[in-house]
Amino acid sequence: MGTAVEALYSQVARSGPPLFFPDPEVPAVFNFDQGLAAPETFPRGDLLRIAKLILDRDGADPLDYFDPDTGYEELVFGYRGLRERLAERIAVRQGRKLGADGVILTSGSVQGIALAVNGYVDPGDVVFVEAASFPYALRYMDMARAEIRTVPVDGKGMDVAALETLLDAAVAEGRKVKMVYTIATFQTPTNTVMPLDRRRQLIGLLRRHRFILMEDNVYGDLRFAGEEVPTLLSLDDTGRVIQCGSFSKTVAPALRMGWIAGEAAAIAALAAVRQDLGVSQWTARILAEFLAEGLMEPHLARANAVYRAKAAVAVRAVREHCGDYVKFDEPEGSFYLWLEIDDRVDWDRAAELAAREGIFFRPGERFTSGDDKRQFLRLAYSHVGEDVIANGIARLGQILKECA
Amino acid sequence: MGTAVEALYSQVARSGPPLFFPDPEVPAVFNFDQGLAAPETFPRGDLLRIAKLILDRDGADPLDYFDPDTGYEELVFGYRGLRERLAERIAVRQGRKLGADGVILTSGSVQGIALAVNGYVDPGDVVFVEAASFPYALRYMDMARAEIRTVPVDGKGMDVAALETLLDAAVAEGRKVKMVYTIATFQTPTNTVMPLDRRRQLIGLLRRHRFILMEDNVYGDLRFAGEEVPTLLSLDDTGRVIQCGSFSKTVAPALRMGWIAGEAAAIAALAAVRQDLGVSQWTARILAEFLAEGLMEPHLARANAVYRAKAAVAVRAVREHCGDYVKFDEPEGSFYLWLEIDDRVDWDRAAELAAREGIFFRPGERFTSGDDKRQFLRLAYSHVGEDVIANGIARLGQILKECA
Repeated sequence: MGTAVEALYSQVARSGPPLFFPDPEVPAVFNFDQGLAAPETFPRGDLLRIAKLILDRDGADPLDYFDPDTGYEELVFGYRGLRERLAERIAVRQGRKLGADGVILTSGSVQGIALAVNGYVDPGDVVFVEAASFPYALRYMDMARAEIRTVPVDGKGMDVAALETLLDAAVAEGRKVKMVYTIATFQTPTNTVMPLDRRRQLIGLLRRHRFILMEDNVYGDLRFAGEEVPTLLSLDDTGRVIQCGSFSKTVAPALRMGWIAGEAAAIAALAAVRQDLGVSQWTARILAEFLAEGLMEPHLARANAVYRAKAAVAVRAVREHCGDYVKFDEPEGSFYLWLEIDDRVDWDRAAELAAREGIFFRPGERFTSGDDKRQFLRLAYSHVGEDVIANGIARLGQILKECA
Repeated sequence: MGTAVEALYSQVARSGPPLFFPDPEVPAVFNFDQGLAAPETFPRGDLLRIAKLILDRDGADPLDYFDPDTGYEELVFGYRGLRERLAERIAVRQGRKLGADGVILTSGSVQGIALAVNGYVDPGDVVFVEAASFPYALRYMDMARAEIRTVPVDGKGMDVAALETLLDAAVAEGRKVKMVYTIATFQTPTNTVMPLDRRRQLIGLLRRHRFILMEDNVYGDLRFAGEEVPTLLSLDDTGRVIQCGSFSKTVAPALRMGWIAGEAAAIAALAAVRQDLGVSQWTARILAEFLAEGLMEPHLARANAVYRAKAAVAVRAVREHCGDYVKFDEPEGSFYLWLEIDDRVDWDRAAELAAREGIFFRPGERFTSGDDKRQFLRLAYSHVGEDVIANGIARLGQILKECA
């Protein structure tokens, strides 16, 4: 077939795809890999009913891009009706008043993260991230040729005092700091929640330094224990916090609907770099109706009850089978256990044994700060059934003992 | 709200959004602007029936990202079942055999174009495009900091002899030519079809020079008169033709489903630069079923009959009302009339008068080759009703006469 086409790849294409996937040749037996919503929570009856309702009822055509007589902005921002409902929900739940032009709809939160990176980061700009973070966000920063600098994470999320030192150092070097990316609530992979005082300190840093604070809030609605902490968006008075959210973790991933919210001027940068013709009208209208009918909060209550039960099974199984080979905090929400593996365990060998048996998880999770030699495992219990959780963790416990 | 956030925008965000939209303050009366499929052709009954069928029938969950036990590749390539159906259809209709790994699903064809640009073009690389072309494609090339060079277009599409000279010149300059982008069938905005001999010459150039030939084939299924011409993908023996297509022009835009097809090694570059988590499983499965049930070809026959009738109304109205102030070729497919406005007409003034009355079209269409002073209008008749076509063109004819 002629000249090898690979010679024509762009630099960025040569560097990807970068993300870890399990070996496709090994059948999954216990799949704790990706952070996926539980299929039994998907509100399929309501979604199908509303899908039909929308087609039967709405004048402007839900199968079209938008209403071409009025809706051109919907090509870049998405269906206005859903943006209004999301802005209302942010006002109610977070006390922050935004207009529809303060919300842009995206293909899941990840596209929103990519748009934020591309809308703000030029090659060589500095971005700060937690020392263990969401791999896709890091990939998009890397594709934008950002200089990624890591901030330590402890049991309370990003170490904001350390960030302050790092910010001052970057400024002293004359570097342009464009963005701080934090998953303040149920940080992945550590599952920590940043407490209020630390959030206030972070907003204080935002007042003093000119950067965009991207708050990844995709897990914010997935609390099943403990008290809510105010979001960074709710504490912001600079107009430079943008917050991403998604229906993928809460309603259903196949809707491909996420968003980024913030002041209109902060969101406009994302609209300017979009490389598609917006999200689906049909899907956006389904979700607008889902919110308008008041279905979201009772749905979340049901979904979080499922995750509370699965977390309890996971915690019990780890306590019973992994003994003192692991340390962890009990989760108050989200999809994960973050297990620190005792250094008696040969973790490289254990992870390889587990992978060979089809026990999938993120075995390569490390803090990216070079001097942290602790070994961790992110175990996502959300997508699988309670029996898989219990049996998979039991088998993992045996492997840990074999490798100790 | 503190420091103006605009100071933080990336260079590329400052340059966008670039695309022409009608003035939102002026109500649309006759909307001939965007190239949109006719809503009356959307197969809403079948789509809704299949949406339900998929949810009721399919084991692996259509509301999920993918089946996490086997389907990780679907995050970057999309639902395998639809890729297989598309590959089959390409084999039948174009005689080119590709596997499922030769098709990547994208959010409409535009995301596919963006992925192709990002997968192949580094800053400073040269890309060739027709001198009047699809604005979004040009925007994505610009965002990738390609050097865009234009090739003249005549009544037979891209002037391939001119491209040969331009290619040789670029090579002589020591420039890296990465891509030639052509809309060979129903070129937009000119609506021309490149004849077979010119296509063969183009493939000849592809054999001699190392570049990617991106064939935008989104209008390829929209022929309502004349004879089909073999696609560039069907003529290719280099493995360096990639072809984009979309269900947006043929089935319904809100499905947000397009694709790019080619040899697996050529498509892998696109997968590597993706900045989302793939397309909707639900939507992809709906379309796979739509194809599997054999609904596509009869649907296209019905849709093309609608466009044939609308084209006839438009042609008749232009002949009757615009007289010899315009020249045009009768369309054999797609959504547009491409009208050359006689130089007796003060076209800037006419376009402004029309816009003020809510007659929307692309008034700024020009060949981007600097020395071409002819003035053109792309009139999209596809989305509106036959009465709007007839009355809008009648009013346009009056304006042309007033401005002559």
